[in-house]
Amino acid sequence: MADALHAELILTNANLATMSDKAEPYGIVTEAAVAVTGGNILWAGKASDMPELAAGATIHDCQGQWLLPGFIDCHTHLVFAGNRADEFEQRLQGVSYADIARAGGGIRRTVTATREASEAELLELTLKRARTLLKQGVSCIEIKSGYGLDTATELKMLRVARATEQHLPITVRTTFLGAHALPEEYQDDAEGYIELVCNEMLPKVAEQKLADAVDVFCENIGFSRAQTEKVFSKARELGLPVKLHAEQLSNLGGSELAAGFKALSVDHIEYLDEAGVKAIAQSGTVATLLPGAFYYLKETRKPPIDLLRQYQVPMAIATDFNPGSSPICNLPLMLNMACTLFTLTPEEALRGITLNAAKALGLNDRIGSLEPGKAANILQLDISHPNQLAYEIGINPITAIWHRGRRVDL
Amino acid sequence: MADALHAELILTNANLATMSDKAEPYGIVTEAAVAVTGGNILWAGKASDMPELAAGATIHDCQGQWLLPGFIDCHTHLVFAGNRADEFEQRLQGVSYADIARAGGGIRRTVTATREASEAELLELTLKRARTLLKQGVSCIEIKSGYGLDTATELKMLRVARATEQHLPITVRTTFLGAHALPEEYQDDAEGYIELVCNEMLPKVAEQKLADAVDVFCENIGFSRAQTEKVFSKARELGLPVKLHAEQLSNLGGSELAAGFKALSVDHIEYLDEAGVKAIAQSGTVATLLPGAFYYLKETRKPPIDLLRQYQVPMAIATDFNPGSSPICNLPLMLNMACTLFTLTPEEALRGITLNAAKALGLNDRIGSLEPGKAANILQLDISHPNQLAYEIGINPITAIWHRGRRVDL
Ligand SMILES: [Zn+2]
Ligand SMILES: [Zn+2]
Repeated sequence: MADALHAELILTNANLATMSDKAEPYGIVTEAAVAVTGGNILWAGKASDMPELAAGATIHDCQGQWLLPGFIDCHTHLVFAGNRADEFEQRLQGVSYADIARAGGGIRRTVTATREASEAELLELTLKRARTLLKQGVSCIEIKSGYGLDTATELKMLRVARATEQHLPITVRTTFLGAHALPEEYQDDAEGYIELVCNEMLPKVAEQKLADAVDVFCENIGFSRAQTEKVFSKARELGLPVKLHAEQLSNLGGSELAAGFKALSVDHIEYLDEAGVKAIAQSGTVATLLPGAFYYLKETRKPPIDLLRQYQVPMAIATDFNPGSSPICNLPLMLNMACTLFTLTPEEALRGITLNAAKALGLNDRIGSLEPGKAANILQLDISHPNQLAYEIGINPITAIWHRGRRVDL
Repeated sequence: MADALHAELILTNANLATMSDKAEPYGIVTEAAVAVTGGNILWAGKASDMPELAAGATIHDCQGQWLLPGFIDCHTHLVFAGNRADEFEQRLQGVSYADIARAGGGIRRTVTATREASEAELLELTLKRARTLLKQGVSCIEIKSGYGLDTATELKMLRVARATEQHLPITVRTTFLGAHALPEEYQDDAEGYIELVCNEMLPKVAEQKLADAVDVFCENIGFSRAQTEKVFSKARELGLPVKLHAEQLSNLGGSELAAGFKALSVDHIEYLDEAGVKAIAQSGTVATLLPGAFYYLKETRKPPIDLLRQYQVPMAIATDFNPGSSPICNLPLMLNMACTLFTLTPEEALRGITLNAAKALGLNDRIGSLEPGKAANILQLDISHPNQLAYEIGINPITAIWHRGRRVDL
């Protein structure tokens, strides 16, 4: 008889929604158990099928509650200083966007505040936001730079993002988004700024290993397709994968460009057409939907959900948490908004903050589902079915969290 | 020299948003203090203007944070059993409302579950929801019956609502909504059901003092204007004030009828016209807006905000928390939805969950603003300005809560 497997922790008396793509929908397993060792899932399945395990494991009784993989927020701008509540108020009082911008409002105001903030202040603000997400069940957050728009502040933002992981039981993936907007210094010189991004910022970011990916805001009010291509080429040269803010307000063909670079994800994509959907389907690129920004900006054009389904493009969902167009630090709310505003099914929405969000970060071999070999990022929830998560807003059903096999203090 | 005033508690080093309607917008007072005695506010204003107080009060340093009146959720259906997540899922999978209803879904399913639930079970479910609201800063909740639709269950629901107040530091106002929907037993006999409501339910509710107000769902798919009038007449006979679910999906003239009965509030009112607005302005009736139901049902017709402003009708905001059309246990989110979906200003929205919500419950002499003589229901918040509350979603800025002058354990 073979030696028994060693587990450190066994979660028993549970129902699972593994979110494995080998067992859709939800990957439901009732009367189940999960065994954890070395921070990873050793085994998950029907309790009656559990292999013989060596004695000595900690046993946790889930009392019939549900276990899900930790949630993943795969698109955030979590590091910034200041807030723009007064601009939100002014707009509702009838002041135009143009007048607000003329008075120094908009993204440049966040850039000024972020440049002025110390690294410690930025970290404190970021940890507060990350803690809110953690309590919602978020075990992994992508964090972008892009409110520095100068080399020193972009590096500072990425250091703060990296440091977040040291202070909280949460996995952080950083994305360099130097090409987020034009800084005032380069107001009439977009090409000059793109050169700065490619020739100064990106090499330093790569050298200091501060970013896991590179992103660009490709839009009429952002950067052109040609400028995006320059940044992507440099990223490829440096060995960094790319993502793209694409087709949010118009169709510049950014997604097709991104597909050519085997981008991890294209994000927003309200204006994506069938050619673009085909392209990202072929490149294995994830479509990341951001219903919070759609809601906040009162957009009316929805992403091409039916085409994405037809071409079997994996759909992720994220908060896009940022101070301008999506000040929404609430990932569970995005589940509902994805259903209510974009007509996703609850199962598609949940897949969008688990396995498909992991794909959007290139981490689907490590997280995003309850499967052997993956990190033991596990949520215990007091629900009667996982479809409840997209339906009910406000009541937090989480009763326990494990991060890499260790119980998180809530 | 006069004897010094006795305060039990003094909150110092604060900024106030008193929400008094004598000092719009927000009633902001910087460098302020609040003195509390006997569970009520004794004094609130500029710290430098504070009258001489006798020694012995507990001093709480707010460290420059903000104080606001406790929030009020003036329209909820908090007492019910079951959830309808599977129907939400089915609709997103393409099943029609009609097919769901034929299969026993919709409100009747909630009625069946609520009839079957024990009083203890219902209380446990209700307390869980009320606790969620409490942590969001809600100090007073209106709770309606209306999922019993038989005398015993309607009384049970109201007892559970009343009991909530005994278990949590929260004020509860109960509303009898027997005329919420037609129960299966009266499927073809609406008049017969209205007789049951008027001649059996209402007298018992009044005799047992279980309701603070009476409500009706006046709509094509609910009860007619004539049926509503019968219920309101009986309520008046029993000395109970009225409210109305009105003009949500069509204009039946319910609000004008309600105005004739000096209703506390008319709620939803997406289809209210100018004659209706004039009528409720004259009767002093509050317009309660429910953006969560509007969002959830994907409605497109907004309440007549400009007319309500023009006729100076007080606007309240509430969750309408219920398992069918607004499973949203999140009052702060309603602030944002009122602005984003209904174009209210952040100040109007905040007034809608403080002073105007108090008016919608007939409690504006007791709660809803930080003014002498009112209950010391006070929130301390880590914000830079009260306009932030409608802008940012997800991060809970509350750092302390007092209910009737007593600190609430968070
Ligand atoms: Zn973004
Ligand atoms: Zn209602």
